[in-house]
Amino acid sequence: MALTIRAHLTTTHLNFNFQPTTRTIVYRRRSQSVRIQPRPIYHSNPLVHFVSFPSMPTVSSSSVNGSSVIKSSLIDPDGGALVDLVVPESERASKRAEAELMPKVKLTKIDLEWVHVISEGWASPLRGFMREDEYLESLHFNFLRLKDGTIVNMSLPIVLAIYDKDKEEIGSSPNVGLIGPNGDLIGILRSIQIYKHNKEERIARTWGTTAPGLPYVEEVISPAGNWLIGGDLEVLEPIKYNDCLDHYRLSPRELRKEFDRRQADAVFAFQLRNPVHNGHALLMNDTRRRLLEMGYKNPILLLHPLGGFTKADDVPLDVRMEQHSKVLEDGVLDPETTIVSIFPSPMHYAGPTEVQWHAKARINAGANFYIVGRDPAGMGHPTEKRDLYDPDHGKKVLSMAPGLEKLNILPFRVAAYDTLEKKMAFFDPSRAKDFLFISGTKMRTYARNGENPPDGFMCPGGWQVLVKYYESLQVEETGQQPALLSS
Amino acid sequence: MALTIRAHLTTTHLNFNFQPTTRTIVYRRRSQSVRIQPRPIYHSNPLVHFVSFPSMPTVSSSSVNGSSVIKSSLIDPDGGALVDLVVPESERASKRAEAELMPKVKLTKIDLEWVHVISEGWASPLRGFMREDEYLESLHFNFLRLKDGTIVNMSLPIVLAIYDKDKEEIGSSPNVGLIGPNGDLIGILRSIQIYKHNKEERIARTWGTTAPGLPYVEEVISPAGNWLIGGDLEVLEPIKYNDCLDHYRLSPRELRKEFDRRQADAVFAFQLRNPVHNGHALLMNDTRRRLLEMGYKNPILLLHPLGGFTKADDVPLDVRMEQHSKVLEDGVLDPETTIVSIFPSPMHYAGPTEVQWHAKARINAGANFYIVGRDPAGMGHPTEKRDLYDPDHGKKVLSMAPGLEKLNILPFRVAAYDTLEKKMAFFDPSRAKDFLFISGTKMRTYARNGENPPDGFMCPGGWQVLVKYYESLQVEETGQQPALLSS
Repeated sequence: MALTIRAHLTTTHLNFNFQPTTRTIVYRRRSQSVRIQPRPIYHSNPLVHFVSFPSMPTVSSSSVNGSSVIKSSLIDPDGGALVDLVVPESERASKRAEAELMPKVKLTKIDLEWVHVISEGWASPLRGFMREDEYLESLHFNFLRLKDGTIVNMSLPIVLAIYDKDKEEIGSSPNVGLIGPNGDLIGILRSIQIYKHNKEERIARTWGTTAPGLPYVEEVISPAGNWLIGGDLEVLEPIKYNDCLDHYRLSPRELRKEFDRRQADAVFAFQLRNPVHNGHALLMNDTRRRLLEMGYKNPILLLHPLGGFTKADDVPLDVRMEQHSKVLEDGVLDPETTIVSIFPSPMHYAGPTEVQWHAKARINAGANFYIVGRDPAGMGHPTEKRDLYDPDHGKKVLSMAPGLEKLNILPFRVAAYDTLEKKMAFFDPSRAKDFLFISGTKMRTYARNGENPPDGFMCPGGWQVLVKYYESLQVEETGQQPALLSS
Repeated sequence: MALTIRAHLTTTHLNFNFQPTTRTIVYRRRSQSVRIQPRPIYHSNPLVHFVSFPSMPTVSSSSVNGSSVIKSSLIDPDGGALVDLVVPESERASKRAEAELMPKVKLTKIDLEWVHVISEGWASPLRGFMREDEYLESLHFNFLRLKDGTIVNMSLPIVLAIYDKDKEEIGSSPNVGLIGPNGDLIGILRSIQIYKHNKEERIARTWGTTAPGLPYVEEVISPAGNWLIGGDLEVLEPIKYNDCLDHYRLSPRELRKEFDRRQADAVFAFQLRNPVHNGHALLMNDTRRRLLEMGYKNPILLLHPLGGFTKADDVPLDVRMEQHSKVLEDGVLDPETTIVSIFPSPMHYAGPTEVQWHAKARINAGANFYIVGRDPAGMGHPTEKRDLYDPDHGKKVLSMAPGLEKLNILPFRVAAYDTLEKKMAFFDPSRAKDFLFISGTKMRTYARNGENPPDGFMCPGGWQVLVKYYESLQVEETGQQPALLSS
C-alpha cells in the first residue's frame, strides 16, 4: 500500500450527473443497526431516474470540522460489531488438536474464499456458513433477521456444500474440521446443521435464470454435493494466498483503521472486477469533488477490486492489480485520497441480487457511500443474445434493498468515449453519435491486435499492462511470439 | 351463507400438536401497520420445529370479555385501510364515457380474477397492477415499502402483461380502458407505466424453477406479452361471475363486517383448494378448541377455498363448494362458528412464495390467525419425481416473511388415516406403519372406481359429491355410463 505518487488531476468540469430528483433519500448516520426506514414506493416515470444523491448531508461535527478525533467507523458494521473468527494465537494449538479428532470436510478453492470472507467479518453478523433458516431468509428475502428484530442485508446464500459420503462420515458429530484444498487444517465448523441443497431452487432464486453457462453455477454449484452444512466458523490462522498480493488484502478491521488513520470523514467505495479506464476515474474523481462541495473535508476513495473467483475471460487479479497501480502512478487517481485493496469475495455474476452483497460487505469495511453503475455484477445472458439483467435493475434494487438504508447509494450514468472532446465522459443521449462505447470485448481486441484505444480512454501505463497480458495469452494460445512483438 | 345446520362435533381428545418450543412468537395486535419486529434467526436443530403457537395471548379486554362492542377488525389491513377500487354508482356513467375514449387493453379470464382481487382490497395497499418499482420489490424481496417506511408483504408480482401491438396502440396515453374477456368495459388503469416483462426472471424468482409444466406459467405467463403495464385501477362495477357462486364471494370488507356481526374475538383462516377431509376438520376444530382454552370466547373459522385459476386435475370450484356445504351439513364443521367464502385469487402453485400471499390476503380479510400445513401451495415437480418444494419450507418461510409479523401463524403436523383408531389423526412417527396417507391421486382413484375410502376419512355427504364428480368425468371421457352407475 506504499503508493506515494502525487496526483495530476485533469478533471475539469465534467459531464457528471448524480441525477437528483425531487425524491431525495435523506442521509442518515446512526449508531444502531438498521431498521426499515421510510422510502417511497416509487411510481416513477421510467425515463426519470429515481435514485438521488443525498442533498442534505448531516455529518457529525466531530468529523466534518476535523477538530476532534474521528471515531472508528463512519458507519456501523451490520449487527453492530465486526465479526472476527480467527482463533487467538494462544488457543490455536488446543483448537488444532481438537479439530484433528473431528470428522473432516474438504474445502474447494472457492469454499476457502468464503471462509476468508466470513472469518474477517465482510458478512457480519454472519458467523459461519448458513444454517437452513439463514439460507431461507437470504434466498427468499435477501436479509437476515437478528434476535432483536433488526434486519441486515444478505442477498447471497453463503453456504458450504457436502456430498452424501461426507454426510455419512459426519454422522451425528456436532462439529467438523475444515480441510483446505492443499490438505491443511483450516478451521472448525461447530453446532452444525445439515440440510438439503436444492440446487435448482438456489440457482433460480439467486440468478433469476437456470440457463446453462452461469460461471459460478458451472464452477461451484453444479459439481457440489446435495447437502449444505451450516455452523459456527472458527479459523485457525488468517487466510493467506501467498501470491504476492496478500498485502493488498486488508480486512474490514484494517480498512476501518486505515480510514481513521487518514482521518476520513467520508468513504466512498468503488467495486470493480475490470481494469480501470478513464470513465471510471472521471466518476470517482467527480464523486470526491461533490463530497467536498457537500462539506466533507477528507473523502477517501476505497478502490476495491474483487479478488475471488471470476469467469475465465475476465482479466486476472494480478494483472488488474498491476493495472490499478499504474492508474495511481500515472496520477489518474490520487494516492493520497485513495486506498486500493482487494475484496476477497468470489464473483457470482448475479446482477441485482449480487450488487447488494457487494454494497453490504463495504458497509462492514467502513464505507458509507457506494457507487453503482450500469448493470452491476451483470453479464450477457449465457444462451440468449441480450444482457442477463435489465441494466437499470441493479441500482433500482440496491436502493430498495432491506438492510441497506444506512448506506448512501451513488448511482451514475454510463460513461463512454466522447469522440468530440476526445476523452471519457458521461454519455449524452442528445448527441449519441459522438460517443463510442468500448466494451470489454472491444478493449480486448485492441490489446490483442496491439492497437491503441482512442486517446484518453485509459492512462498509457495501465494500457500497457493489458497489452502485455493479452500478448502473453496469445503466446500461450499459439505457442509462438505474437505479431506485435515480432514486428 | 344461510348455513343453519347444528354441529355434531365428534372431536374428542385429538392427537393435535402446535409444537410449542422455547422460542415463542409473542402475540401482537397493533393499530399501526407493520414494522419489522423481533424474530430470532433460528439456529434450530432440523428435527425440532421452530414455529410455535403463541403462548401468551394478549387480547384487548373489549373483545375477550365480550362486554363491550367489538371493533371492526381484529387485525388492521395492510397499509392501515382496505383498498376499494369500485367506482361509486354516481360516477360510473362519466367514468365509462371517459374510458370509452381511451386506448384499450383486453383482459384474459385470469387477468380479470386479478382485477377482482385488487379492486376489493385483498392486496391492500396495492391500488392497481404493479409498476416496475413495486414489481422489483415484490420479485426480489417479497414486500412493498410504503411512503412512511413501513413494509407490507407482497410475495407475488400482481402484474398485467400486454403485447407489442398493445404498447404501440397505447402510445403516450397516460390511461387505458380495460376490456373483459367478453368484450365488456371493466375499468380504467391510470397513470400507467409500461416496462419489460422478463418472463424467465419472473418465473425463476417466483417459482424457484423454470422447468416446463408449471400450470400458471403455461396458462398465463408463456402466452402473455413481453411488456407489463402498471397503474392505478378503477373498476366500473363489482366483479361478478354469474356462476351461482357469487353469494360465496364475500369481499374483505364484507368478511370483516360478518366477523363483527358474529362478535368474533379471533378469526382463524384455512386456505384450501381441495375437498375437506376429516384430517382438515380435525385440525380446524382443534384450533378452535385451543383458542377457547386460550381465553377467546368466540373464535370464528374462515373456511376459505381459493376460487380463481387452478390446474386441470384439481377439483373444480363448484364441486368443492358443494362438498364444503355437505361437510357443514353433516356437522363435521359447525356452521355457527364457520364462515365459508371464496377467495377470488388465481393459484400459482408457487409454494413458499405463494403461501405468503395466501396469508397476507387473509390479514386484509380480517383473519388474525392463519393455519399452515405441509407443503402449502406446493405440487409435484413438473419434470422430476419429487415435490417441487421442501414440504417444510412453506411454514418456515411464512414465519420469517417480512410484513406478516402481526399475523399469528398456526403450523400443523400432517394428518393421515389412523388404521388402528379408524379415523384421521395427526401422524405419529413412532407408529408410522399404522397410518395410511391418502393422496389426491389415491382419493381420485377411490372415487373413480366407486370404492369408498376408509371409514372416517371424509363425511359421507362430502364423499358422494366427489364420487358424482368423478363419475361425470368418466362419462365425459368415455362417452358412456360409468361402470359404477351401470352396475
